[in-house]
Amino acid sequence: MNKVHNFSAGPCILPQEVLQQASEAVINFNNLDLSLLEISHRSKDFVEVMENARNLVKELLGVPDGYQVLFLQGGASLGFLKAAYNFLPNGGKAAYINTGTWSSNAIKEAQKIGVVDVVASSEDKNFNYIPKGFGIPNDVNYLHFTSNNTIFGTQFKNFPISRIPIICDMSSDIFSKKINVADFDLIYAGAQKNMGPAGTTLYIVKESALGKTGNDIPSMLDFRTHIKKDSMFNTPPVFPIYVSMLTLQWLKKNGGVKWIEGVNQEKADTMYQEIDRNGLFKGVTAKEDRSTMNATFVLTNEDLKEEFDKMWNEAGISGIKGHRSVGGYRASMYNALPLESVKALTEVMAEFEKKFG
Amino acid sequence: MNKVHNFSAGPCILPQEVLQQASEAVINFNNLDLSLLEISHRSKDFVEVMENARNLVKELLGVPDGYQVLFLQGGASLGFLKAAYNFLPNGGKAAYINTGTWSSNAIKEAQKIGVVDVVASSEDKNFNYIPKGFGIPNDVNYLHFTSNNTIFGTQFKNFPISRIPIICDMSSDIFSKKINVADFDLIYAGAQKNMGPAGTTLYIVKESALGKTGNDIPSMLDFRTHIKKDSMFNTPPVFPIYVSMLTLQWLKKNGGVKWIEGVNQEKADTMYQEIDRNGLFKGVTAKEDRSTMNATFVLTNEDLKEEFDKMWNEAGISGIKGHRSVGGYRASMYNALPLESVKALTEVMAEFEKKFG
Repeated sequence: MNKVHNFSAGPCILPQEVLQQASEAVINFNNLDLSLLEISHRSKDFVEVMENARNLVKELLGVPDGYQVLFLQGGASLGFLKAAYNFLPNGGKAAYINTGTWSSNAIKEAQKIGVVDVVASSEDKNFNYIPKGFGIPNDVNYLHFTSNNTIFGTQFKNFPISRIPIICDMSSDIFSKKINVADFDLIYAGAQKNMGPAGTTLYIVKESALGKTGNDIPSMLDFRTHIKKDSMFNTPPVFPIYVSMLTLQWLKKNGGVKWIEGVNQEKADTMYQEIDRNGLFKGVTAKEDRSTMNATFVLTNEDLKEEFDKMWNEAGISGIKGHRSVGGYRASMYNALPLESVKALTEVMAEFEKKFG
Repeated sequence: MNKVHNFSAGPCILPQEVLQQASEAVINFNNLDLSLLEISHRSKDFVEVMENARNLVKELLGVPDGYQVLFLQGGASLGFLKAAYNFLPNGGKAAYINTGTWSSNAIKEAQKIGVVDVVASSEDKNFNYIPKGFGIPNDVNYLHFTSNNTIFGTQFKNFPISRIPIICDMSSDIFSKKINVADFDLIYAGAQKNMGPAGTTLYIVKESALGKTGNDIPSMLDFRTHIKKDSMFNTPPVFPIYVSMLTLQWLKKNGGVKWIEGVNQEKADTMYQEIDRNGLFKGVTAKEDRSTMNATFVLTNEDLKEEFDKMWNEAGISGIKGHRSVGGYRASMYNALPLESVKALTEVMAEFEKKFG
């Protein structure tokens, strides 16, 4: 058990054993008598870390041949631009689904390169659902969507199907459940949810889809630059990549994505059952679109806020204050959060009901 | 004393006490019972780290009013593009001094935005000197140069003077000596030499110089985006920024840039005196342009390579193999490298002379 029940929305909880290993590597890495932070990224020892991290991604997600795995810098926010630069020709058009803040930002960056057709949006209801039943035009270069919306607590349960290339920002639910990588031309994800600490971003890209835009892409934004150099075109963010590798090792050792998908479902079920059962709380999003990663909920009686806040604080629960765009509460239940932490929270909620319900 | 004499060219040696503090924060940060890696970047505790880091830069370098200090991602390699996007209008022209690999890469990126006039180059002699006595045209938007050339071991001892805005990539000698920030419109530097671990890049930018290009700059590449959000437009690279803050605290506590400039000069003098004194070695660069950070040298008799390599390896010396573009040896003597390590190397060189000279 962790000392603190850490529901932080990201950067978020990491496995304790990973933190222990990471802490040791900062002092003495691989028994080199040197810190991981002070060796060359071209040294045998770090090249091995990079290769391990990339191979673990391939293994855990079943990445098929023809796809490249990269660890780069800049966060998903730079990914918005990279996606457009590498897949949207000047004068081209891309379809975007707008399911919240991060989708909106992705749209804004793509508009620097070409035309964006927002084919579906849930903005009308403050992004509390996932749009369904919309058409996807055939004359666009790709379809872009955000698989999980951290801020609003919604998640695509079925991915859009189309013959056009599909690009997905999976920052907040990658490695939380099985996916079929072959359905995508590009998947990208900031590390700081299920993969590791802030400071690196994962890209899984179909190599044959690259180089077709005719764009004169700046070197650092061109996936081909990084593929050619095995993610080492320039000095990579050594520590975030190392800790990502450790976290993926932890996931593999425990049973991989299949295992964590079950754990995550159990955590989400526990959480949402309490939200639905308990008359003092109400879920924020459409039930069928509820995220297994981020449960958003509000009090039915706002006057009891102070009392509830006091109770969960006293129970060692941390990080459940809702995002300012939604208010209320948000329990983020990323891979490393134990079921016990969710139970600690639902017990506080039940206790709260007994006292004030 | 360090167990290993770490001459790595970067990522490079960091102060032992910094590594100790960083290691502890990975387990328990600020006595929160949480790791630094698993707390929100918007938490009070991390916002304080970011503010401290930015303030330490201002204090240590005497950054005048009107300049903004940012910690971003992407390395200096993305800085090449950011510099051009923010200072070079479409159809504009910029002057670049080409003193090696990194200058060349900076030129390549600027050419994506506008016209580059290479006003001086040392490419004719494999970049073993710093060009002097060249003219700087008045009709360019800025002059760009690299203050220290890690690979070749040269360093500007006097910065170019001009009325046009000056932009400098100081990745490998920032915080090693006093500079006058007011002479520059933009200074940028990857952290992984004198400032911290790989994964963040420092920008010091004159705010009044921004917004004048008319370029439609992508959000993540626009300094104004990051200034508005205090370097927190998106999730920052938390750990690299924290360790940079610790390293700058270490520098301040020991006497700041003035102190380290003296230490660095003594290390460089010790190193170059031995290179010049010892008949078995020869410096690679023009004497007046020798870098205090990276001393490049070769054996006068290549047949003795194996013998020399054996000797320094046995003495616990690490990381002095020269870059493939130069060959021979390179002793990188960044801020955290103790004089004792330089002496250990020069003693091996003297010993080597006794045996084989």
